[in-house]
Amino acid sequence: MNATIITIGDELLIGQVVDTNSAWLAAELTAIGFRVVNTLSISDNGEAIRTALDRYMPENDLLLITGGLGPTNDDITRKILADYFGSGMRFSEEVLSDVESFISGIGSYMNEHNRKQALVPEAAVVLRNQHGTAPGLWFEKDNHTAVSLPGVPHEMKGIFNDELRTKIIGRFKLPDIVYKTVMFTGIGEAPLAEKLTGWEDSLPRGISVAYLPSPGIIRLRLGATGEDRSAIEKVIEQQVETLKQIVSKYIYGYDDEKLEEVVGRMLLERGAALATAESCTGGLIASRITSIAGCSAWFRGSVVAYSNEVKKELLGVKPETLMKYGAVSEETVKQMAAGVMRAAGSDYAVATSGIAGPDGGTPEKPVGTVWIAAAGPGFTTAKKFSFGQVREMNILRSSIAAMNLLRKSMLEE
Amino acid sequence: MNATIITIGDELLIGQVVDTNSAWLAAELTAIGFRVVNTLSISDNGEAIRTALDRYMPENDLLLITGGLGPTNDDITRKILADYFGSGMRFSEEVLSDVESFISGIGSYMNEHNRKQALVPEAAVVLRNQHGTAPGLWFEKDNHTAVSLPGVPHEMKGIFNDELRTKIIGRFKLPDIVYKTVMFTGIGEAPLAEKLTGWEDSLPRGISVAYLPSPGIIRLRLGATGEDRSAIEKVIEQQVETLKQIVSKYIYGYDDEKLEEVVGRMLLERGAALATAESCTGGLIASRITSIAGCSAWFRGSVVAYSNEVKKELLGVKPETLMKYGAVSEETVKQMAAGVMRAAGSDYAVATSGIAGPDGGTPEKPVGTVWIAAAGPGFTTAKKFSFGQVREMNILRSSIAAMNLLRKSMLEE
Repeated sequence: MNATIITIGDELLIGQVVDTNSAWLAAELTAIGFRVVNTLSISDNGEAIRTALDRYMPENDLLLITGGLGPTNDDITRKILADYFGSGMRFSEEVLSDVESFISGIGSYMNEHNRKQALVPEAAVVLRNQHGTAPGLWFEKDNHTAVSLPGVPHEMKGIFNDELRTKIIGRFKLPDIVYKTVMFTGIGEAPLAEKLTGWEDSLPRGISVAYLPSPGIIRLRLGATGEDRSAIEKVIEQQVETLKQIVSKYIYGYDDEKLEEVVGRMLLERGAALATAESCTGGLIASRITSIAGCSAWFRGSVVAYSNEVKKELLGVKPETLMKYGAVSEETVKQMAAGVMRAAGSDYAVATSGIAGPDGGTPEKPVGTVWIAAAGPGFTTAKKFSFGQVREMNILRSSIAAMNLLRKSMLEE
Repeated sequence: MNATIITIGDELLIGQVVDTNSAWLAAELTAIGFRVVNTLSISDNGEAIRTALDRYMPENDLLLITGGLGPTNDDITRKILADYFGSGMRFSEEVLSDVESFISGIGSYMNEHNRKQALVPEAAVVLRNQHGTAPGLWFEKDNHTAVSLPGVPHEMKGIFNDELRTKIIGRFKLPDIVYKTVMFTGIGEAPLAEKLTGWEDSLPRGISVAYLPSPGIIRLRLGATGEDRSAIEKVIEQQVETLKQIVSKYIYGYDDEKLEEVVGRMLLERGAALATAESCTGGLIASRITSIAGCSAWFRGSVVAYSNEVKKELLGVKPETLMKYGAVSEETVKQMAAGVMRAAGSDYAVATSGIAGPDGGTPEKPVGTVWIAAAGPGFTTAKKFSFGQVREMNILRSSIAAMNLLRKSMLEE
């Protein structure tokens, strides 16, 4: 079953608002077995809406349309839809009563704009909106379905969750789809693809593979469709096992799990706590860790030692080390890691020191050179990395590499 | 001039990734005078790409296409584009050399997948990519232009900023547009809009106003089109002056300047340095500061004191203060600010302590309660904030509010 999602609104076309409705609806439709073939954002005018309906209605089993239903002058959508489906308008007492109770619930009062929401196309089945004033509208034509929803995300999601998901599942014969995402770090997209060429070539028919790269992290998504969910799950699981045999050292987790969550779980299992000593990463490691709710159970804190004075005063890095080897050196990061364990009273630590750029590079230590240390009860290890020229990327990649160095060190404990 | 943006990738259609490229490119194209009429996301397969080109190429002056250019097997866009424009492929030594220098810059090695990037359609003008391996490709057909860019946001933005924007402006007859963006913080969108109602109503014809809100920061973009650039600039400048008279206390800068850059400049003028003591912000303030190149001239470092032990040991917060007032209190954040100035040897400091959520709230201090302190040579000030329920937003808003509290305190020095 094919679906297309159409979002209506000029704010999307001038880049004022990022369209998050499409991704949310796409995920929901995918989860119940639809294949979303397009998402489209269009302007809030009659011609654009009609053109989109003419193009995408015939080639989809389901169109989901959001936006253009607001209470102000943009009630065009409703009228265009009524015309498209050859329908007049009717006044719905049910919708009026919903609107009245919503409006009084937020301590506001009815006006002409609100009352207009009760004027709906005769051809439409109304989907009640308990989260705002614009009802959803369900249309059928030549065995194709179109559903119009308000553009405000929480209203759209509310109608979908309350009623629409169930109604869609009841209306269509949907296959089972299974996805599994394998999370990689410590390897680039191209080298990973090279290692997996043979595996990809020998995959059973019907299994799809997508590389979803972001700086420092690659998500490899396996997908399969079929009639028997548990059989598909088994096929996917077998392929994940094969993957593990080929490239296990780069796999840190599954299904969008964050690297920091994985390390946090390892620390919790040990009843241990982490601290970070950050020079070039400037607090990003700590910030990524503390974005995880509940991290206070395993994270003590961080010393962001941007100046050499702070490295000496707070982390106990020896002046002669800085003098002899420089701030960006194996000796310095190891002392930083040891220093923050002592200062913050943690069992494990990571430390970073590097040249993020754009300035500060030398022929021996060009921009992108980063030393990273990981330390724990029985080990201190350090590794040199060479990232690129872009400051933001060097900081981000260093943060990920530091947590991965700790993870790998802990695995070897 | 009409433009459509097409983003390619199955990850967009299963809702795994929110398409942010479209909004970014739409804002950029709007800023140089294009009308973006559609944004469309499609699957990474030949038929979908050909259908989209057939539909949207004739009705647009410019198509921008992102994605589908990666080095792995799921990327076939390049081939489809070559076919569509009736072109064979050629091997580009220039692209190969760019790819080689990028790959060696990140400490990786060339393989077959990387080398493939140098195989480009003969009909395309190559746009060099200094931020990754996939070059941009510029095609012309029947006076319509299509440009294909990599899907990775920072590579796409890099190519656009390095070369593409200028090339587009040179290719099309675009009206002169002048934009000026006024940066606000410390006020919400609705209250700001309310304060500016009278001003908006009395604006001269032809001046457009757009509110571009993000958490903690509102950008108000004034725009005007015309034939005489300097006359338009003058009109816009006058309106900015009027704005300053109405809401100056919420204006921190102009034209996408970061709050951290503004504070950094104030510190540089004073020859002074900053340190941060962060509990609930978890290093995000330091991370935002260190994203700015050259910040080492005015930033010493940070103590991320996620545990009370670190607050006591490294920041000298008194145990009796924590006992009597709690970690989230005026007394604690003031001592944290004083402590980090001492420890890091800085002249100024900010400190944060709050309940980011989702857990840890009490009836007296619900989730979203945050105390923030700013301190300098002659002052220590603290302020309580009540943000919302969402952890990520509480952390982000606290980080912005802390730098703004420091900025305002420094203005009063």
